Amino acid sequence: MDAQGMILAISEAQMGHKQGGIPIGSVLLLPNESDAEGTFTLLGSGHNERIQKSSPTLISALENAGRLSPEVYRKSTIYTTLSPCSMCSGAILLYKIPRVVIGENETFLGEEELLRSRGVEVVVLDNEECKDIMRRFIQEMPQAWNEDIGELR
Amino acid sequence: MDAQGMILAISEAQMGHKQGGIPIGSVLLLPNESDAEGTFTLLGSGHNERIQKSSPTLISALENAGRLSPEVYRKSTIYTTLSPCSMCSGAILLYKIPRVVIGENETFLGEEELLRSRGVEVVVLDNEECKDIMRRFIQEMPQAWNEDIGELR
Repeated sequence: MDAQGMILAISEAQMGHKQGGIPIGSVLLLPNESDAEGTFTLLGSGHNERIQKSSPTLISALENAGRLSPEVYRKSTIYTTLSPCSMCSGAILLYKIPRVVIGENETFLGEEELLRSRGVEVVVLDNEECKDIMRRFIQEMPQAWNEDIGELR
Repeated sequence: MDAQGMILAISEAQMGHKQGGIPIGSVLLLPNESDAEGTFTLLGSGHNERIQKSSPTLISALENAGRLSPEVYRKSTIYTTLSPCSMCSGAILLYKIPRVVIGENETFLGEEELLRSRGVEVVVLDNEECKDIMRRFIQEMPQAWNEDIGELR
């Protein structure tokens, strides 16, 4: 499931990049119960839309999944191409999503330690494609990147 | 400024309640520089719209403020009728908003300690009106409240 989840998240990041946006993608998957094959249900997918929607707060994979019951979040896994910022990590904690699979954390190290300290399982894949997407984007639009992480130029 | 900020946040919470929503309101204010009178600019205001917009992630005061430069967030104060959940606290940390004024934290205690540990000034007003709004709402719609804080019934 993890390889497939990350492929979907990378597709979202690439879609965001093609739209002229910040190429961070994410998906929320629900593993199908008692299925040894590792099949899953896609609950929601999305990418950063700061630029496309002038949105400073959209967490699109969770937003596109819509309102879910607390029980569903607690059985889900979230996949993200980049280490989750404090806002996205806060959403993971709020909804008690128990597992986060991260494409890479070299470009940006989010709140992985906080997540772990609260009992969330954090897996970092160290995926080269995820790093390449961010490297190209930051070269192209350094200011949008600084805005995205709240950093001064 | 703090009394006015909380009045505006409470107005937002009341608006949310009238709409059949979860009555949590918030505003983002920028103190006017070198003004001893305590005047300010209203950057954004909003209320929880989980029910109205089927949104599990909207942080409406920040969303309605639109894209702001990192410099502006770092001079602003956010007012919220209720202690901020981990997602909203994460947004405060992401954008390095230095000061949070909270109506009450009896109904729900958010991530105040995390905010303080990261250097954010946290002021709790212990406002009775804020508590009353939440008390009535939770009696009316206990399930929506549990969903909002990710708790099982």
